[in-house]
Amino acid sequence: MIEGKKLGEAGRVLRYGMIGGGPGSFIGGVHRGAIKLEGAAELVAGCFSRHPEDNQAAGQDLGLQADRIYANFEVMAQEEAKREDGIDFVVIAAQNMVHFAASKAFLANGIHVMCEKPLTTSLSDALELKRLADANGCLFGVSYSYAFHVMVLEARERIRRGEIGEVINVMGEYPQEWLIDLMEQTEQRQASWRTDPKQAGMSNCVGDIGTHIEHMVSFMTGLKIKKLCAKLDIRGEGRSLDTNAHILLEYDNGASGHYWCSQVAVGYDNGLKVRIFGTKGAIEFVQEQSNYLRVTQKGCPPQTLSRGNGYMTAPAAAFSRVPSGHPEGYHEAFANLYRAFCEAVRKNLDGVAVDESEVIYPTLEAGIDGVRFITKCVESSSQGAIWVDL
Amino acid sequence: MIEGKKLGEAGRVLRYGMIGGGPGSFIGGVHRGAIKLEGAAELVAGCFSRHPEDNQAAGQDLGLQADRIYANFEVMAQEEAKREDGIDFVVIAAQNMVHFAASKAFLANGIHVMCEKPLTTSLSDALELKRLADANGCLFGVSYSYAFHVMVLEARERIRRGEIGEVINVMGEYPQEWLIDLMEQTEQRQASWRTDPKQAGMSNCVGDIGTHIEHMVSFMTGLKIKKLCAKLDIRGEGRSLDTNAHILLEYDNGASGHYWCSQVAVGYDNGLKVRIFGTKGAIEFVQEQSNYLRVTQKGCPPQTLSRGNGYMTAPAAAFSRVPSGHPEGYHEAFANLYRAFCEAVRKNLDGVAVDESEVIYPTLEAGIDGVRFITKCVESSSQGAIWVDL
Amino acid sequence: MIEGKKLGEAGRVLRYGMIGGGPGSFIGGVHRGAIKLEGAAELVAGCFSRHPEDNQAAGQDLGLQADRIYANFEVMAQEEAKREDGIDFVVIAAQNMVHFAASKAFLANGIHVMCEKPLTTSLSDALELKRLADANGCLFGVSYSYAFHVMVLEARERIRRGEIGEVINVMGEYPQEWLIDLMEQTEQRQASWRTDPKQAGMSNCVGDIGTHIEHMVSFMTGLKIKKLCAKLDIRGEGRSLDTNAHILLEYDNGASGHYWCSQVAVGYDNGLKVRIFGTKGAIEFVQEQSNYLRVTQKGCPPQTLSRGNGYMTAPAAAFSRVPSGHPEGYHEAFANLYRAFCEAVRKNLDGVAVDESEVIYPTLEAGIDGVRFITKCVESSSQGAIWVDL
Amino acid sequence: MIEGKKLGEAGRVLRYGMIGGGPGSFIGGVHRGAIKLEGAAELVAGCFSRHPEDNQAAGQDLGLQADRIYANFEVMAQEEAKREDGIDFVVIAAQNMVHFAASKAFLANGIHVMCEKPLTTSLSDALELKRLADANGCLFGVSYSYAFHVMVLEARERIRRGEIGEVINVMGEYPQEWLIDLMEQTEQRQASWRTDPKQAGMSNCVGDIGTHIEHMVSFMTGLKIKKLCAKLDIRGEGRSLDTNAHILLEYDNGASGHYWCSQVAVGYDNGLKVRIFGTKGAIEFVQEQSNYLRVTQKGCPPQTLSRGNGYMTAPAAAFSRVPSGHPEGYHEAFANLYRAFCEAVRKNLDGVAVDESEVIYPTLEAGIDGVRFITKCVESSSQGAIWVDL
Repeated sequence: MIEGKKLGEAGRVLRYGMIGGGPGSFIGGVHRGAIKLEGAAELVAGCFSRHPEDNQAAGQDLGLQADRIYANFEVMAQEEAKREDGIDFVVIAAQNMVHFAASKAFLANGIHVMCEKPLTTSLSDALELKRLADANGCLFGVSYSYAFHVMVLEARERIRRGEIGEVINVMGEYPQEWLIDLMEQTEQRQASWRTDPKQAGMSNCVGDIGTHIEHMVSFMTGLKIKKLCAKLDIRGEGRSLDTNAHILLEYDNGASGHYWCSQVAVGYDNGLKVRIFGTKGAIEFVQEQSNYLRVTQKGCPPQTLSRGNGYMTAPAAAFSRVPSGHPEGYHEAFANLYRAFCEAVRKNLDGVAVDESEVIYPTLEAGIDGVRFITKCVESSSQGAIWVDL
Repeated sequence: MIEGKKLGEAGRVLRYGMIGGGPGSFIGGVHRGAIKLEGAAELVAGCFSRHPEDNQAAGQDLGLQADRIYANFEVMAQEEAKREDGIDFVVIAAQNMVHFAASKAFLANGIHVMCEKPLTTSLSDALELKRLADANGCLFGVSYSYAFHVMVLEARERIRRGEIGEVINVMGEYPQEWLIDLMEQTEQRQASWRTDPKQAGMSNCVGDIGTHIEHMVSFMTGLKIKKLCAKLDIRGEGRSLDTNAHILLEYDNGASGHYWCSQVAVGYDNGLKVRIFGTKGAIEFVQEQSNYLRVTQKGCPPQTLSRGNGYMTAPAAAFSRVPSGHPEGYHEAFANLYRAFCEAVRKNLDGVAVDESEVIYPTLEAGIDGVRFITKCVESSSQGAIWVDL
Repeated sequence: MIEGKKLGEAGRVLRYGMIGGGPGSFIGGVHRGAIKLEGAAELVAGCFSRHPEDNQAAGQDLGLQADRIYANFEVMAQEEAKREDGIDFVVIAAQNMVHFAASKAFLANGIHVMCEKPLTTSLSDALELKRLADANGCLFGVSYSYAFHVMVLEARERIRRGEIGEVINVMGEYPQEWLIDLMEQTEQRQASWRTDPKQAGMSNCVGDIGTHIEHMVSFMTGLKIKKLCAKLDIRGEGRSLDTNAHILLEYDNGASGHYWCSQVAVGYDNGLKVRIFGTKGAIEFVQEQSNYLRVTQKGCPPQTLSRGNGYMTAPAAAFSRVPSGHPEGYHEAFANLYRAFCEAVRKNLDGVAVDESEVIYPTLEAGIDGVRFITKCVESSSQGAIWVDL
Repeated sequence: MIEGKKLGEAGRVLRYGMIGGGPGSFIGGVHRGAIKLEGAAELVAGCFSRHPEDNQAAGQDLGLQADRIYANFEVMAQEEAKREDGIDFVVIAAQNMVHFAASKAFLANGIHVMCEKPLTTSLSDALELKRLADANGCLFGVSYSYAFHVMVLEARERIRRGEIGEVINVMGEYPQEWLIDLMEQTEQRQASWRTDPKQAGMSNCVGDIGTHIEHMVSFMTGLKIKKLCAKLDIRGEGRSLDTNAHILLEYDNGASGHYWCSQVAVGYDNGLKVRIFGTKGAIEFVQEQSNYLRVTQKGCPPQTLSRGNGYMTAPAAAFSRVPSGHPEGYHEAFANLYRAFCEAVRKNLDGVAVDESEVIYPTLEAGIDGVRFITKCVESSSQGAIWVDL
């Protein structure tokens, strides 16, 4: 018996499995913790590592039945699909290179997927997943978790309501310090795979964090990128992938933008910050201060909105868990992502059609946009930072 | 089957019950969510409300077996004590007036207790609980949760190491806005019981939030209050309990201090802030910015420490869950409280002696200190804000 | 010829003299710089030091005529009063002990005075000055300069308009670090005289900075202190005057307050901060961020007002010199004080009656309030921090 | 007689004239106020406006002798050069289009010049001024005043000492809100000339504020721009000059950079902010918080340096006027610029050679760099935001 349902909430507890997220993984534990916090689903199956011993250890530590700790994800997909009590969805928290094949395996067996970003390492793979998901009637989420901080939802709603007018300029940044030293030469696994083209794909910095800026701006504003000019820098002796990048953008409505991401920016932990400037107002969100939102109307003093207060809009307030002034953070953002995703999964399981244009969790469209963005950044930069159309 | 143990952690999952925390309660859900996030224990029994229907609904919503949804806490304590698979500890999240009787019932049956603050509504009750716990060999925690933000642990460790020298002055404050209007005349249950002497006891503001300042300062510094002078203000037409209070203090080492708590301070959500000034340095913690700590050495620029970085001390780092720059908040602080408490409970169940002077979760000593503090504040204020010894 | 008048402003340039403010003085240069920035007056006479050589050197450095560098202030007062081109007012920037005698000398000769705070070292002296000024028809300003930051004027105006309702609570603080070490044992002159009862009078910390809190709160709110309870602490080996103080207050309207001042608060340069809480809103001013004001209406997000914007009130906007976003600071606040004072002096010289209840520069009333406040704090503290009426 | 010299300082008071800065000008008054605050020079001549009446009124208001209020700058240059008591230098505070001709007139007559930025409206004009100044042995300053905030000097010194290692990335921004509405259609003169190509030249936003970013980065780091890619946006119905711009850069040492300037960024008054990232550390300066500097060493918590403290470097401390915690601002930065410039002028008048490579005030080199930067930004943008070499 598990404590599943939140008191007073109707949602039934789902069953899920996980790919990756074994020993040494950071993000796997975050997914599991967030799902627990939300009480949305129960972990019942998994394939956590390529290394059999690590895989077994992880599965046992997590309390799985022996026959649901799988040696590979293909077998897992097939077996779970056959079971009466098989998983309702799978979480893919493995490294970038595995996303495509693993997603494919579960979609082929009709199992819904929540996959880490970036979705795939090539645009064609991303498009192939879209085809597969549609063909199999599967839901597919991509875990752009930062977008589910309540105050990002608040910003999105206010922009949709026209509070800041037409967007004319966007400033996005995501500075981190952690790769200023050659961490990949230590035992730091996060650094090793991210700086290795074989495991991370065509980009490190843009792929890992630049893509979060791209998604958050798109999520908040609904703007589409028309063209971009990207300058990717490789800082750090012996590295072959980007650790710093500047991207100039033009959006479909004629607005301009600039994204900066860096893993060599001393003084910043995880400084994702998005500022949206419109003809009537402006909105700013800083991930490290995720309970607040700076909103300014033209000619008026800036206001600092605090999550949980009575002046919040309904769509954002619905995701707020504790009263104002009690900080929510990373786990809650992830939990909110699962709240949105699991609601859709439950509907689907109940035979209710889910209109993907109305869900707020990031779908394959968002995932594809992300891969296209990374691809185009690399393409632009490799040709001398020229402008390329999207 | 539940996902209990955190991957790679040895702690076994405990069983717990809850008193209070039914429909309309805020804090009950926080306890349950934090325990889930930590993966420390499983809810298996409860008595959630005086109202039979509410109680049943809550128990069922939370997935409890029918025979473990109890009509009153006394029966629950007796029945659970008899069961082979009975609860390992109980969480008391009911209103202040219930704390004493409920705690007593479980201690009398040899069941460990985690109780909300303030511990009791009289000092004699608090001392009686201490006697009972000792007599029955029970562990007893008081949920002063704010003290378990990682950066409070960091502050505590640095002060213990002498980084700021001898403490000479303390500034604590806890402003809130929420009672600036007469919320108790609406349906707001939190406001109704807190402003009602029959349910809240002798104090509203000092009892609800002033006591958090008192505990956090004591926890960080180890200082004992020698005497105090308190001015409790009743703001709000028709109220009979304090909604604003100033307390001047002198500590055992000769340091001075001032605590201010308010529920009528416009512009503040939950502004708990503690500043400790020493002969060599100073440390500041702001609860709403719980991932940061301001540390200054004499003659040097202030430093802003950020949770999760390599420069953190080991005792605090042990409670950090996600990398620096990914905000942790209220749920994590509560989860940390349970990490500390459940570790002691496991030891006790394994027959290992727990030395209460070494545990970091707040014990009955802290609970008693809290009740004494509230009592003395009321005593001082009622006599014209005179100085009273503790 | 001096560049006196600000372009487009009608005020004619006055002539002034100075007492104190010679080598080693900090505040004398600030007065002179502020008067120059304002273009309000020209320095033409002075007695800058007890030490004849220092006095001469200062006078010559400042470009004074030889016969207007005076050996003592009494002669200066008499001589200047006789001259056709004698000074219009005198600035008294000498140490606390000199304020009374010097002020008296100039008042007796019918010369207007701007005197540093604290006005005198005893309440009877302060009252005597009031008598003298009235008898001689002299204007008298006390340089509580912090009150003339534009955003303090803004706060004052908004409070007068009722924007925050009835004031119910006040929090004032003024922490500094500079005396954490025994600076008076070095050559630091500022430290030497302030910690010496013979030169500073009955109080160091309350007299030097606590009095600024007292004045600013009074200036912003118009509240009168009804009674107070003060705990003055002497920190620092061998000292005999206070370096840290807590003061609890009750105002005439029943509001409560707390002032904290400290010269041993590591991490603070000059942290004057005043928070006024009312029944409808709250206002906060931080001196080190003097171009901003935090204003919150009940139930609304806090607003950060920035000096110079269109939403400012007229009485404050009149003192803003440069556009929003171009920081003004300490010199401008002082210059504003002189703008207000010199306007009154010009009126007086022109034979226009000045109604002291309408001027905004601090008059003898404010100076007397300040001395009474210091006196009562010392009285309260010396009797064990009891409550004393004002 | 004027109060010129700062007490204890040896510098003699210079005589200066002014071009522009009449009624409706903002910057002229700032120059005059700063020079007064510094006590560096005395205004004795001027040509303040093209409109004879405005010119006369201004000159009289400023207390000038009738024969030194000139109808045009050419006559003024000739006449002042002939006088025994002629001006030592001239301040050119007129609109951009006038800078070149006015500078030329004074240089041709051997008079030192301090000119507003941007230096000229074409690169060839700027180079011509350099030729003239050299030929006539004149000193020439360009008033990039923001660089003279004390904490910018501190940043510069620390970077020169290698504290942050090799610079690898630069982020500069300068957002303002003031042109979000069509202010030029009102009586706002600042807006009218800046948005008019006939008066402002080829660029509005980059020329007015983008150039400040360019200078501050160059001043702090010594980096030269190798190439840039600029996207200038014209926001606002009916405008023909830029009001928003993004500029990607590569410096001579291989570092990357991004500058953003905007006059249509709601929520910002004058948000100049420069962040310099190196291999060992990072430094951030925010103009609106000009008394502070954020300095971070790799792996350490960020430090907030406060102007005036003992830990400051000597070259910066030399420009600090009041103790730490007493805010200095815009006037003081300008005064510091004049401190540096007037020291060089005095040397020159005394026949001492001034080595322009060692002075810290912005010379014609800086002015030329500024014009080249603006020119290249316009060139890049007009060709579709391509990369252009500098």
